[in-house]
Amino acid sequence: MVRVYFDHNSTAALKPQALEAMMPYLTNQHGNPTSQHSYGRNVREAIEQARAQVAQSVGAQASQVVFTSGGTEANNFAIKGIAANLDAAQVLVSSIEHPCVSRPAAGLQDWQLNNIKVDKNCSLDQKNLQNLMNTPTNLISVMLANNETGAIQDITKVAELARAHKAYLHTDAVQALGKVPVDFTELDVHAMTISSHKIGGPLGVGALVLNKRVDIAPLLDGGGQEKALRSGTENIAAIVGFGEACELAVYNLTNYATHTTSLREHLETGLQSVQAQIFGQTTKRLPNTSFFAFNNIEGETLVTALDKEGYAVASGSACSSVNSEPSHVLLAMGVEPDVARGAIRVSFGLDNTLEQVDGFLVALKKVLQDLKQLTAIAA
Amino acid sequence: MVRVYFDHNSTAALKPQALEAMMPYLTNQHGNPTSQHSYGRNVREAIEQARAQVAQSVGAQASQVVFTSGGTEANNFAIKGIAANLDAAQVLVSSIEHPCVSRPAAGLQDWQLNNIKVDKNCSLDQKNLQNLMNTPTNLISVMLANNETGAIQDITKVAELARAHKAYLHTDAVQALGKVPVDFTELDVHAMTISSHKIGGPLGVGALVLNKRVDIAPLLDGGGQEKALRSGTENIAAIVGFGEACELAVYNLTNYATHTTSLREHLETGLQSVQAQIFGQTTKRLPNTSFFAFNNIEGETLVTALDKEGYAVASGSACSSVNSEPSHVLLAMGVEPDVARGAIRVSFGLDNTLEQVDGFLVALKKVLQDLKQLTAIAA
Repeated sequence: MVRVYFDHNSTAALKPQALEAMMPYLTNQHGNPTSQHSYGRNVREAIEQARAQVAQSVGAQASQVVFTSGGTEANNFAIKGIAANLDAAQVLVSSIEHPCVSRPAAGLQDWQLNNIKVDKNCSLDQKNLQNLMNTPTNLISVMLANNETGAIQDITKVAELARAHKAYLHTDAVQALGKVPVDFTELDVHAMTISSHKIGGPLGVGALVLNKRVDIAPLLDGGGQEKALRSGTENIAAIVGFGEACELAVYNLTNYATHTTSLREHLETGLQSVQAQIFGQTTKRLPNTSFFAFNNIEGETLVTALDKEGYAVASGSACSSVNSEPSHVLLAMGVEPDVARGAIRVSFGLDNTLEQVDGFLVALKKVLQDLKQLTAIAA
Repeated sequence: MVRVYFDHNSTAALKPQALEAMMPYLTNQHGNPTSQHSYGRNVREAIEQARAQVAQSVGAQASQVVFTSGGTEANNFAIKGIAANLDAAQVLVSSIEHPCVSRPAAGLQDWQLNNIKVDKNCSLDQKNLQNLMNTPTNLISVMLANNETGAIQDITKVAELARAHKAYLHTDAVQALGKVPVDFTELDVHAMTISSHKIGGPLGVGALVLNKRVDIAPLLDGGGQEKALRSGTENIAAIVGFGEACELAVYNLTNYATHTTSLREHLETGLQSVQAQIFGQTTKRLPNTSFFAFNNIEGETLVTALDKEGYAVASGSACSSVNSEPSHVLLAMGVEPDVARGAIRVSFGLDNTLEQVDGFLVALKKVLQDLKQLTAIAA
C-alpha cells in the first residue's frame, strides 16, 4: 500500500544531513559540556557552532539563543519567565495560540489574561488589539504563523504597538521557521520561540531567542547551563542536529516555497470539485498548509479513513488531538462548531510530489463517497 | 596518546544497543505520538514499550513514569510541582543535593527551606532530620546517591519519618540508577527522579516516577502529553533509547558492581602511596566512585594536568563546574575549604580496565611531582 505523509506541521522526518551531523555525538564523541577535560571541550565547541548556525538562520546573534527541550518549553519559559520579573498587569495572547502559550498565560498569578481576536481569515484584529491596549499591558504573545490554517501575522505591527506601550512581545515562530523567512531582528520582538523537529531536525530541542535586554527568570534551575537561563545537561547531539537543520532550512527556503505552493494549488483546485470549505485561503499563509472541511463529516472520521488509504493528515492541531473539541482556531475565526469539527489539515514537505496529491484526491473522493453512503444508510 | 574516560558520573557514552534501538526513530519511523494516523500510532507504541522497560527496571508501574527532558527537569518538576498543590510549610533538603533540587526548593514562595546535615562520611544525619521535623514539614528531598562521593542514603528510613509526619518525600536517584539496585516501591517515596545519559542512554530524556496519589502541578503546560503532566512533543528516539539503556543497566548490574569495585579498590590502594585523602571511604558508596584530594593542590589544576596526560576526571560536580567554588558536598561534610578545593573525582564505567587504572596512577604520580616542583619554584 501507498504510504504518504501529509502532516509536516505535526512533525517532520529527521533530515539525513541532520542525522549525519549528529552521529559523532551518538557514537565516539561524548562528554558533559561543563566538564573541564578534552571530552567536555569538544562537545562545548559543537554546541557553540550549532548556536551560531541557529542564530544565523533567524537573523539573531549567537548570544541571543537559549537552547531548550523544544517549543513547548521555550513558550512556557517565555511566558512564565518574562512575567516573573514584571509587575502583574494585563497579558494579551491571540485567540489562536497553541495551548503551550495560552495555558501558561492563563496560569499567571495576579495577571489579567485577555485574548486578541482574529477575523474570519485568521488574521489578527489589530483594532481589537489597540482597544485592549487601553488597559495597562505588560506582556503580549502573538504567533508568527498558525499551525492549523498557516495564517501569518503582521508581527512588526504588533511590535510597534507593544513598544509604544512599553509591553514585552513574544512570538511563537515554531510553524514559521523553515517555511517562510524568519528574522528576529526585523520582527523586533523581545522573545521568539523556535523548534527543531518541525523543520526536519531532531525531537527534543528548541530555542528561545531572546533580546539581551529582557530580564527573564529561568524555568529550570540547577547547574547553571545556558548562562543560568536553562539548567540541565545540554542535549548535544540534538542541538547539533538542530543547527544543521536550520542551515538546511534556510538554504532550501526558496525551493520550499515554490514546491509546496504548487502542491497546495494543485490540491486546492482539486478540493473545489468536492465542495470543500477552505479556511484562511485569502490570507497570507504558510505555503505548505491547507486546512479545510466538508459538511456533515467528522474530521476524525475522515483522518482515520484516509489513513486506511495510506494518507497521513491531521484533524485540528496534532498536539491537542488527545481531546476531541472542535479546533479553537476555527472557533476564534467564527466558524460554526459543527463545521469546525469536520476540519482536516494537509501540510506538505519538500519530499511530497504532485503525484501524491493526485493520489490523495482520488482517495479523498472515494472516502467521501463511502462516508456519504454510510450516512445515507444510517439515515 | 592514551585517552581514558574516568568521568562516568558526569555523563556516560551512549551504549551501542541503545543507539540501535533508537535508529528506526531517527530514520524511517517518524510521526507525532498525538497524531491519529498510523505514523502516530507506531511511535505511540514505541513510547509505551519504553515506559514499561523503564518502569520495570526501577520496580514501578508503567503508569507511574512521566518522561521529562532529563534529570534537571524531573527534579524541578518534583519540587515545584508537588509544592504547588500543598500548603506552604517547611521544605527540607539534604545539604548535599544537586543544585537542580536545592535551588527550586530555595525558590518556593512562602516556604521555609532548611538543610538536613550530613556527617563527615556524607551520611544523612538522621537525628538532625528528626529535630527538624518538629517544625511542620510538607516536603522533603534526599538524594539516593551523591554524585561526588557516591554516598548512598538510607531513604526507607527517611520515608518512614516522612509518612509519620504526612510529608511528601522525593528522592533524586539519578546517580544511583544503573550502579546499585533502585526499587521505587521498596524506597516508598512519593516521587523519584532518574536520568538516561548517566546510564548510557541518550541525552535529553529522564523521568519522574510518581506515586499515583501525589497531586502534582505540571511544569510545562500545553498540548497535554504525558496525561497532561508534561506537555511537549515526546522525544521519541531518546525515550526508546532510555528504555533500552534501563533494561541493559539492570541486566549488567551484578557485573557492574563487581567490575567497578575491583577498579576502585585498585585505585584506592594506589592512592595510599601518594597520601590522598579519600572522602566517604567508610560509608556505603556507589561502587564506581572515588573522591579524593591532595594537600596544597587545586583540583582544577590537577584535572587539567591529568587531561593532558589523557585521563578525564572531574573536579567537584561537573554540573556546577562553571563556577570555582569548593564542593558544597565536601563543605557539608565539614571538610576545610582549602582541602575541598583540591578534590577530584574518578568515576568508572563498565568499559574501564585495571590497566587504565595502573596508567592513571603512573600519570597521577608524575603530575603530582611536576606540580610540587612548580610550587617549590614559585615559593
